[in-house]
Amino acid sequence: MNGADKLCDVLLTNDVDVCFANPGTSEMHFVAALDRKPEMRCVLGLFEGGVTGAADGYARMADKPAATLLHLGPGLANGLANLHNARRADSPVINVVGDHATYHLQYDAPLTSDIECLARPMSQWVGRVETAADMRRVTEEAYRAAVSRRGVSTMILPADAAWGDTEPEDIKPVEVPVAAPASPDQIREAALALKRGKHAAIVLAGRALRADALEIAGKIAAATGAQLYSQHSARHERGAGRVSIKPVPYPVGMAVAALAEFEVAICLGKGAPVAFFAYPGMPSLILPPDCKVIDLGGPETDLLQTLELLCSDLGAGSAKPVLNALTQDELEEPTGDLTPETISQALARRMPENAIICDEAITSGRGFGQISSGLHPHDHLSLTGGAIGIGIPLSIGAALARPDRKVILLQADGSGMYTAQGLWTQARENLDVVTIIYANRSYAILQGEMRNVGVNKLGKNACAMLDLDRPELNWCLMARGMGVEAGRATTIEEFSRLLDAALANRGPFLIEAMI
Amino acid sequence: MNGADKLCDVLLTNDVDVCFANPGTSEMHFVAALDRKPEMRCVLGLFEGGVTGAADGYARMADKPAATLLHLGPGLANGLANLHNARRADSPVINVVGDHATYHLQYDAPLTSDIECLARPMSQWVGRVETAADMRRVTEEAYRAAVSRRGVSTMILPADAAWGDTEPEDIKPVEVPVAAPASPDQIREAALALKRGKHAAIVLAGRALRADALEIAGKIAAATGAQLYSQHSARHERGAGRVSIKPVPYPVGMAVAALAEFEVAICLGKGAPVAFFAYPGMPSLILPPDCKVIDLGGPETDLLQTLELLCSDLGAGSAKPVLNALTQDELEEPTGDLTPETISQALARRMPENAIICDEAITSGRGFGQISSGLHPHDHLSLTGGAIGIGIPLSIGAALARPDRKVILLQADGSGMYTAQGLWTQARENLDVVTIIYANRSYAILQGEMRNVGVNKLGKNACAMLDLDRPELNWCLMARGMGVEAGRATTIEEFSRLLDAALANRGPFLIEAMI
Repeated sequence: MNGADKLCDVLLTNDVDVCFANPGTSEMHFVAALDRKPEMRCVLGLFEGGVTGAADGYARMADKPAATLLHLGPGLANGLANLHNARRADSPVINVVGDHATYHLQYDAPLTSDIECLARPMSQWVGRVETAADMRRVTEEAYRAAVSRRGVSTMILPADAAWGDTEPEDIKPVEVPVAAPASPDQIREAALALKRGKHAAIVLAGRALRADALEIAGKIAAATGAQLYSQHSARHERGAGRVSIKPVPYPVGMAVAALAEFEVAICLGKGAPVAFFAYPGMPSLILPPDCKVIDLGGPETDLLQTLELLCSDLGAGSAKPVLNALTQDELEEPTGDLTPETISQALARRMPENAIICDEAITSGRGFGQISSGLHPHDHLSLTGGAIGIGIPLSIGAALARPDRKVILLQADGSGMYTAQGLWTQARENLDVVTIIYANRSYAILQGEMRNVGVNKLGKNACAMLDLDRPELNWCLMARGMGVEAGRATTIEEFSRLLDAALANRGPFLIEAMI
Repeated sequence: MNGADKLCDVLLTNDVDVCFANPGTSEMHFVAALDRKPEMRCVLGLFEGGVTGAADGYARMADKPAATLLHLGPGLANGLANLHNARRADSPVINVVGDHATYHLQYDAPLTSDIECLARPMSQWVGRVETAADMRRVTEEAYRAAVSRRGVSTMILPADAAWGDTEPEDIKPVEVPVAAPASPDQIREAALALKRGKHAAIVLAGRALRADALEIAGKIAAATGAQLYSQHSARHERGAGRVSIKPVPYPVGMAVAALAEFEVAICLGKGAPVAFFAYPGMPSLILPPDCKVIDLGGPETDLLQTLELLCSDLGAGSAKPVLNALTQDELEEPTGDLTPETISQALARRMPENAIICDEAITSGRGFGQISSGLHPHDHLSLTGGAIGIGIPLSIGAALARPDRKVILLQADGSGMYTAQGLWTQARENLDVVTIIYANRSYAILQGEMRNVGVNKLGKNACAMLDLDRPELNWCLMARGMGVEAGRATTIEEFSRLLDAALANRGPFLIEAMI
């Protein structure tokens, strides 16, 4: 067997059985090895940003890593922005990046570049296979790092390590260290702060936004009067019957005002909230300067157990958390103009239970977030790292991980254009995704930011960089060009009809909402 | 004035008056400053790969750098693959990458990443502005490095350096060191080798493939019996009346065979040719092991003057170079199937003088290269770094640099899908580009490479990763969706009619050739 066969064996033994791929010449032996393993599902992306974003979406919904197959430094580079988002989502991903044969590197052939240097900023772990004999050890390390540290592992695979011979081995699943909860001292400190009756916020992120962890956090809040806040996270289990929680607002001023009264903040899943961007005269930190922050751990911590221990210390086990009431069935059919708000309402009325909402709607999506707590239980996947172009890829990964659930993608038009090629993969794999394009034909968020810097009237160059209406994009044509059925809505009634049809069928459909 | 205004002033003073951009929140003060400078032409790309590839195409045809505007680490990352190509094309580019305000970096906000680390592999020069007061110095350094070293400069612009106040200054154009020719000793060594009557190849790349340099190389060849060979380069001035030169073939076996007889190779513009990829049992170096290589300098060398000195040393000034004969006007109208070969012939008959050919046709373009020496004089821009997805962006930059010349883009379908968003920029700027899509609905080059590794029948997973026909792409719909008129050809007659119409009009047009 060759090194590439061994790589496949280690991945499959560890239940990594999906490979999002865009291969090149240096990976042909790996492609040939994958071709000998029909139990591996290989999914082609027509661009590497689609490959890595799909791996992120898959990890969020499957709770296990997929592999990616990327071609040398430029192939990795094309995938880095969505690896940045994956890193901020604490998503385990195993990148396999092909490289030239070891002896070929010295000649600086045209596609040569410093892959380690490119990988490092977006990877928790970076390693290189030296020879085929080394394959098992390095692949197992990559897997262990991705799973135990919930992060991006990037493994560099020289062509001669892939084609080189190696002995068969008895490969066993990797033992991954079990995550520990926060220390007793940390938990005690948090409990004491809560008992003292100070104004306390419990700020949750990551794994702490799953329903089971939220349930415990809700009991703690009910028993102590603490307020629950959420930060943008990989996967927030939302909806009626789940614990009520407020998001930390995105605009810095609103966020600071919302958290101004708190004397203590207990953070789980991520550190204390910070402003997405700096603005002249505005603070970087959202919490008031004298607020005490107690950090109970990030993605490497067992957050559920941490909350259970804290709940138990507080004797809050029988407290009744405030749960979201079901309002979905009472929502009225929207009328009037086609706007982000009426779209939200039309969607909210129709959203099927257990839907997976992939949200890259940017400015257009805020209304839906406000309604969504009253809808039937569902998952909400957000743009964790701020690198736009994740929506369509995320929908691919989520739909592949959970073919039993409807995926609804809320997609801003400007961001959608980053990785629109992913629509083709939606069609190729017949994924059950409804894509809603909020076609406002501008970088609306940036037009708002221009006002923030004091520019109220855009000149020639600002318009050249911030509007998208010359020429107008036609998403229906683009979608059909990639094999995805599509319809355009210019009224809310048209939108609702298209959405009814899309939800009644399986398979990809795109609605272009001309807001 | 603020730092961003100063940055604009330094760029404009140095005749950098085109900025390919995709901004974000952290660059709003730079956008506002650009908006106060109507003499700067700002061109929006809907994805950063389009931005950087356009800057490369612009530099190749304008012989000066454009600026880019990129949003933080992920924005830069999206542009890295085409910066890799720009680096391999020796194209001067000045990237301006926004970053968080200096004091905000410590909080690791969601969009924070190690920008220097991302930039370094694809940049000759990387620098960071510390304060607005620092702006002039750093911008001038970035400019000097890009121009004198013909490379990619990446300048990191923290938001507070952009918005911070700074005093007006009297800004003068940067003095750029003049490139020197190869040393007298090197030239003498080359002259002696040529005089000794050994089998000699003169291998040209980069600036040495412009008509003036080729003319001198042709005299040297005529006087000494040396053979001329070209390597893939940024811009090769080709066609009838120009010096005849053979390309080093892409397939390793053919390349090795072509150069097997040479005892001496004199290289200008790039080092000795190397195999694009390594293959088991095949050499990495193309020249025979005992061939003596004399390197007369890379992009930092004055190659024209070097050739002139060599020519003079050899007394070859009055030798008659072998020039390409004009065959264009004798070519027959092709009939029969629509194939890469008949497309080449139809195009060759019709190609206008001074056309700029942007070539990312991969396997489909080889035939055109063989005919092109007999066509009216034109420029040929090739894929220098092997990172696919450059064709459409390259056409944008070339057309902006030379609005007086027709740009013809030969585009493979798989590669075109990487940066198809650029079609929208073609339409927005009404660029005079005819795009020919070679729609073979596969990664044909990789299917060939699979045969090279001994796989003759592709299985489920190999097909999943190498064919593009499920679903079939429709480039006409995609192009129209982005505002570019398009037509599909299924016969050579249809193709020729569409090409006639496209060449008769100005503005972008796309032909989808169903080969």
